[in-house]
Amino acid sequence: MSVETAKQTRKKMVYAFGGPGRAEGEGDMKILLGGKGAGLAEMTNLGIPVPPGFTITTEVCIEFYNNGKKWPEGLEEQVKEGLKRIEELMGAKFGDPDNPLLLSVRSGARVSMPGMMDTILNLGLNDQAVEGLARKTNNPRFAWDCYRRFIQMYSDVVLGVDHDHFEKLIQARKDQKGVKLDVELDAEDWKALVAQYKELVLRETGKPFPQDPWEQLKGAINAVFDSWNNPRAIKYREINGIPHDWGTAVNVMAMVFGNMGENSGTGVAFTRDPATGEKRFFGEYLPNAQGEDVVAGIRTPYPVSELERRMPEVYKQLEEIYKKLENHYKDMQDIEFTVQEGKLYMLQTRSGKRTARAAVKIAVDMVHEGLIDKKTALLRVDPKQLDQLLHPMIDPKAKYEVLAKGLPASPGAAVGRVVFTADDAEEWAKRGEKVILVRSETSPEDIGGMNVAQGILTSRGGMTSHAAVVARGMGKCCVAGAGDIVVDEEARRFRVGNVVVKEGDWITLNGTTGEVILGQVNLVEPSLAGEFAELMSWADEIRKLGVRANADIPRDAKVAREFGAEGIGLCRTEHMFFAPDRIKAVREMILADDAAGREKALAKLLPFQKNDFIGLFREMQGRPVTIRLLDPPLHEFLPQEEEQLQELSREMGVPVEKLRDRVESLKEFNPMLGHRGCRLGITYPEIYNMQVRAIFEAACELAKEGMTVVPEVMIPLVGTKKELEVLRKNVERVAEEVMAAAGVKLEYRIGTMIEVPRAAVTADEIAQVADFFSFGTNDLTQMTFGFSRDDAGKFLGAYLEQEILPADPFQTLDQEGVGQLVRMGVEKGRAANPNLKTGICGEHGGDPKSIEFCHRVGLTYVSCSPYRVPIARLAAAQAQIKYPR
Amino acid sequence: MSVETAKQTRKKMVYAFGGPGRAEGEGDMKILLGGKGAGLAEMTNLGIPVPPGFTITTEVCIEFYNNGKKWPEGLEEQVKEGLKRIEELMGAKFGDPDNPLLLSVRSGARVSMPGMMDTILNLGLNDQAVEGLARKTNNPRFAWDCYRRFIQMYSDVVLGVDHDHFEKLIQARKDQKGVKLDVELDAEDWKALVAQYKELVLRETGKPFPQDPWEQLKGAINAVFDSWNNPRAIKYREINGIPHDWGTAVNVMAMVFGNMGENSGTGVAFTRDPATGEKRFFGEYLPNAQGEDVVAGIRTPYPVSELERRMPEVYKQLEEIYKKLENHYKDMQDIEFTVQEGKLYMLQTRSGKRTARAAVKIAVDMVHEGLIDKKTALLRVDPKQLDQLLHPMIDPKAKYEVLAKGLPASPGAAVGRVVFTADDAEEWAKRGEKVILVRSETSPEDIGGMNVAQGILTSRGGMTSHAAVVARGMGKCCVAGAGDIVVDEEARRFRVGNVVVKEGDWITLNGTTGEVILGQVNLVEPSLAGEFAELMSWADEIRKLGVRANADIPRDAKVAREFGAEGIGLCRTEHMFFAPDRIKAVREMILADDAAGREKALAKLLPFQKNDFIGLFREMQGRPVTIRLLDPPLHEFLPQEEEQLQELSREMGVPVEKLRDRVESLKEFNPMLGHRGCRLGITYPEIYNMQVRAIFEAACELAKEGMTVVPEVMIPLVGTKKELEVLRKNVERVAEEVMAAAGVKLEYRIGTMIEVPRAAVTADEIAQVADFFSFGTNDLTQMTFGFSRDDAGKFLGAYLEQEILPADPFQTLDQEGVGQLVRMGVEKGRAANPNLKTGICGEHGGDPKSIEFCHRVGLTYVSCSPYRVPIARLAAAQAQIKYPR
Repeated sequence: MSVETAKQTRKKMVYAFGGPGRAEGEGDMKILLGGKGAGLAEMTNLGIPVPPGFTITTEVCIEFYNNGKKWPEGLEEQVKEGLKRIEELMGAKFGDPDNPLLLSVRSGARVSMPGMMDTILNLGLNDQAVEGLARKTNNPRFAWDCYRRFIQMYSDVVLGVDHDHFEKLIQARKDQKGVKLDVELDAEDWKALVAQYKELVLRETGKPFPQDPWEQLKGAINAVFDSWNNPRAIKYREINGIPHDWGTAVNVMAMVFGNMGENSGTGVAFTRDPATGEKRFFGEYLPNAQGEDVVAGIRTPYPVSELERRMPEVYKQLEEIYKKLENHYKDMQDIEFTVQEGKLYMLQTRSGKRTARAAVKIAVDMVHEGLIDKKTALLRVDPKQLDQLLHPMIDPKAKYEVLAKGLPASPGAAVGRVVFTADDAEEWAKRGEKVILVRSETSPEDIGGMNVAQGILTSRGGMTSHAAVVARGMGKCCVAGAGDIVVDEEARRFRVGNVVVKEGDWITLNGTTGEVILGQVNLVEPSLAGEFAELMSWADEIRKLGVRANADIPRDAKVAREFGAEGIGLCRTEHMFFAPDRIKAVREMILADDAAGREKALAKLLPFQKNDFIGLFREMQGRPVTIRLLDPPLHEFLPQEEEQLQELSREMGVPVEKLRDRVESLKEFNPMLGHRGCRLGITYPEIYNMQVRAIFEAACELAKEGMTVVPEVMIPLVGTKKELEVLRKNVERVAEEVMAAAGVKLEYRIGTMIEVPRAAVTADEIAQVADFFSFGTNDLTQMTFGFSRDDAGKFLGAYLEQEILPADPFQTLDQEGVGQLVRMGVEKGRAANPNLKTGICGEHGGDPKSIEFCHRVGLTYVSCSPYRVPIARLAAAQAQIKYPR
Repeated sequence: MSVETAKQTRKKMVYAFGGPGRAEGEGDMKILLGGKGAGLAEMTNLGIPVPPGFTITTEVCIEFYNNGKKWPEGLEEQVKEGLKRIEELMGAKFGDPDNPLLLSVRSGARVSMPGMMDTILNLGLNDQAVEGLARKTNNPRFAWDCYRRFIQMYSDVVLGVDHDHFEKLIQARKDQKGVKLDVELDAEDWKALVAQYKELVLRETGKPFPQDPWEQLKGAINAVFDSWNNPRAIKYREINGIPHDWGTAVNVMAMVFGNMGENSGTGVAFTRDPATGEKRFFGEYLPNAQGEDVVAGIRTPYPVSELERRMPEVYKQLEEIYKKLENHYKDMQDIEFTVQEGKLYMLQTRSGKRTARAAVKIAVDMVHEGLIDKKTALLRVDPKQLDQLLHPMIDPKAKYEVLAKGLPASPGAAVGRVVFTADDAEEWAKRGEKVILVRSETSPEDIGGMNVAQGILTSRGGMTSHAAVVARGMGKCCVAGAGDIVVDEEARRFRVGNVVVKEGDWITLNGTTGEVILGQVNLVEPSLAGEFAELMSWADEIRKLGVRANADIPRDAKVAREFGAEGIGLCRTEHMFFAPDRIKAVREMILADDAAGREKALAKLLPFQKNDFIGLFREMQGRPVTIRLLDPPLHEFLPQEEEQLQELSREMGVPVEKLRDRVESLKEFNPMLGHRGCRLGITYPEIYNMQVRAIFEAACELAKEGMTVVPEVMIPLVGTKKELEVLRKNVERVAEEVMAAAGVKLEYRIGTMIEVPRAAVTADEIAQVADFFSFGTNDLTQMTFGFSRDDAGKFLGAYLEQEILPADPFQTLDQEGVGQLVRMGVEKGRAANPNLKTGICGEHGGDPKSIEFCHRVGLTYVSCSPYRVPIARLAAAQAQIKYPR
């Protein structure tokens, strides 16, 4: 024996649990024993009845793979010792023809990977033992059913014989007997089927079904190890970011049977209500059944109170156990148990999955109960889940059929009548109709219609398409890119397969799932008071990262404030340009031949913009408001279609040729990288000057009323210090002019978006002339990757599928690449200007993982759409708890 | 007197020169004395006759600005001392009514800023002194002309009275007398004008013209200081990268007069022929004239030999002097001299400007003459100038009229008959016609026509438009973006104002200047032998940076090799897709419904690609060839116009609806950031697989012939390690398959373009799976700035005008931003993979400034269009001389 293997024989590879006394493992040994194994050990140690068994460690699994799929030296010995202990405790013998011990073999990784790996039950049966089991239980049907289940499961998992082959044999038997259900088959049927099963296995594998229980056990353990690397497990780990080298443990446990008569049964329960969080024991119980039967859904289980009715003593014991477990784990538990002939066995305990509502209530309740502290409570709620609480939802009790599926582009649910143009939406809404705006894709001209619609449905575009981004900003339900839908806007109808939905038909959208439903489904409204508000107040106590909102109009600002935003991090002034009372002046400005003409048109826009800003400032009550000057290319404001051009020509009294020429001359090959942002400010200074004038006239007016206003003027798309320097001077000049005229002196800041890679790289230069940076990570992501957000749909799917990217970088900040530029921008910027304020205003500002990054990188604040403000507040608190700064 | 000013009084602020003995300064004191002052001092020290004078240092100028435009303490004293020395040497007195000393006051910065700052001549004249001068010279006309010139110049420069006012008075006088020329005015006329001039000055400035010579001198010195910061000087410095804080020196010198009769005169000369470089004294001489008269062009000067004819002794002296100067400065000199009544004075010497041809010849000749070493010779030629030598040029002696001007998009000149479509170009060329292809803009489909055309003219597009880039690649003359030209392709004609040019008309293009000329102009052919070849061989001895070429077809590769390329750094395989014999298969591939269909179409392309590569490899004779796999989005290969679609539909037997749908579905908002580059390789692996197969089949075939072939497969647009990892595996698989089938083992490399900012930022990751990086600085510049090359024309002009950018970043690498990413990419890449080869293949690879950057940053090679290879070789040598590595 080499030194290496000598070491291995000394290494403990098998940990016993169950039965009297302490287990060999403990609850905090998840890394070694896996979640299930650690839970079983912990329950044993708490004196809770667990069937005896043992856990083979995850280290063995790793060793198994490193070792060419061979068992490490000494494992066999330790497994056999473990087996012996079970035999002694159960008073039965593995493979004994008269009194056979049956085992379950289950995987159990460090974190739960539900359904990803394999399980084998009733192991240890063979042609002799089945007879013994029949005699011992006095129940031949039970025994033969167990055996055929075992052959079926084992053959599928270990021997690779397809499950279907077996099901076909059962079906043939039922057909032959003229029955429909499995329960209608008797012991003889199962016995005959076992014979057929064995023939099948011989035929398919070339070998007889293994009769040696030890061989069975070794095969099962190996199969569990193998299942760690089956394709669906690998995929699951990749999706969930679980390392491939963790390995799985294997739990071998004495079988207990809930299907041994009316004093047997099986159940699953939660220590609190997983839907509402209410503090009540909540679960299901199925008498005379095995766990499998519950899952299969053949029989409808009773509420767990049925157990109380049938066996009050057992129920009382269960009650004590669940309370003990919850108190011990200080979290709501999801437990599995089996009653075998009046004796209770616990098979599993783990933290229970719950709805957002329940998560919040349980966390807050447990703080009040003294079980956990506030920090723990904050970590218990997944910020992403909060979305569920902030929007109307489809009534969980409602039944409906899904017509089509798109992307869950903006959460919440909406019911309304279908319209196909923004104008129709506004018209219908004006007469009190609830509408859903359906378009192949939306454009900035649709803003008005989107605004009045209950929800938006598009057949094209991704999670960051115009419809999706605007809808999220509005907190409005949106299903985008529903590819099965063919929209015919002219005919005012859409088609899904053979179903035609016409203007005025009712549909329901679920923006949280992407479902499109024909007809009206009941909705339930969100509630933001009570535990939710309490949890949020704790988050605010703890977090260091500020949370602002992206809001363009007073109504959005109001929502943002109600959701707890500490300011506006991004007001996109161009959204104000699209309103019908302004767009004409905007177009006049674009069509003007010179600066004088543009100034004339801009003068018409000034009062509108000023009023917009007055509204925003008022709504924000002294909180900072960051206003971004005009960003999109001018062609976005001109119509593109010939018909619209004709109309505009009539309306404005401008020859259609001139309009067409202008549209043509403004066309760009890559508008994303075109004449937009501060490039407009440099080439047409009068536009920015008007906007700055409007901002400061508004601020001065309110200042005279005694209100504090701190305008922050933000210049978009800056790539060089000189750009900001030139534009900063213009802003200062206009601001000083306006303030001098009003006789008011305001504090104000001038800063820039960092959204062009060059800006991040030269942040030390730019920071010299900036009071703040706001990382525009939408555009920064586009340019850093070279991905057009509008076009990336063509390959992003393949990229995610082939795992070239771990996540859609427009949803979760790419920390490795884009994040490196953000970090560089912050560090260089701060080094050059220690007073520099830094924020983020891309979509990422509402994504918890990205928020954690922003916290770690030291940003002053994140800014996100109003409806994501609570999510950001919670995520910021969690970031501070995990990485105190 | 404070300590501070006490210090200043001790500082030497005035340096005397001229007259007998040594000057106070020296030739290497350009920083303190400016170029002119240092030259005058050096000539003095060489014993060359220079009129006595003094230089006020550049430090005084800086002090002047720091001091609120006041003279530093002690300056007045030192100036007066200098003045006294001049008076003594000239035997005249400043302001003396009988024997007045006259002075010139000239600026002189560290580097020549021709015409940017001010000069005043004849200073010291007043109402008395003019009479004295008249008496002394016995030439009243001369005296009064001097005086009126002085008033005019001084009033303009120092007093701010517009030059035009004076010219109008002269004109009035001439009209009154009924004469046309200044020379027709006599002493009385000038005297009368002087009176009018003085009235004018009084009227315009409210003060009489200063009569005190000292006041005149102070005013003139201040005016020169002021002129350092006049707008045109500031602009000039910004364009030429001259720091604003250098300041200018002021040179005050005794006036000498070449206009005192037939034994006086003035001249300029070059010590060698500035056009050809021939070693012969070359210049012009104008008897009885002042320098002004030569510049004004009123009289035609004689060749300098005229001086020899008139005053052989003076000429001999001049000959000795110019030889002394050239030997002393070891460079061709541009000298100015004046003969006053038989006495020779040197007024200036400096390195002479020269043509590229002359620069090369002079540098090489001087090495052979033992005057300079090879390194100095290499530094003497501006690499950019070489362009002139590599292309046919318009005969310098030709006279012509310019019809329109566009951008000098690709150098050289071309003569041909106008055609308006690529097809016509090919047809006409086939029958032996020389054609110029004229289009509003070109697209990849025009490649064939561009290829056979003598030159290309477009009315739209910038320096980096398709036409410009492709033409430069082909070394073909191109004028792009000639905005005055209105092209009517259908009517087969173009119009410039009222001129209509029809198909078949002859035109001449000058791609070096952007000129478009009606008719045929004589061209001269380039010559690359002789001194040029010798200089290039020295460059190759010295440089460390490799030079490769971007070449797509064997013909380009041949040119590249002839120009000295050491390999191909970029072969754009997509250019091979556009040839008429292939485009059909390419379109079939794009229109295929699935991978199988695509593979079928690709199989048709395989033999073409293979032949292309065989041609390239053969031409490069074992030098490395980097082949970039397909890069552009697929829609570039489909026609866009309805008519073309109809044609394609008939041709391919595919319903036009299907074509239209496919075109529609491939459309992108921002194709630059769309479905292209390695994204195609990931989503349609069969395309790259075909290309790789073609590369290796070609290489194996040649290897069997005994040729060394080192294919380098380059994956474009990589942004993440995983992309390259996946694609690398595919390349390796196909390569190994092909080599195994051929029974050949080749060395090959797999690398990537670094052109997406993310790739530069994560270069340490990517380098783990790359054998080489090639920085694609065209795209990297686009994405780092967020500038679409095709759209930036809309604002780039304003950016350059307003000096927001120092240069077009698509022509000269933006070292501060894009360069930082390149540096990061190289450093991170090398750290992760020490064997990594690094190159650059953007347009910048042929720009001398950018090449210097590439050298400093440690790249292995640059790759540029074949016609820029000599430029790159020279620039690389210069970089090594300046920054040895």
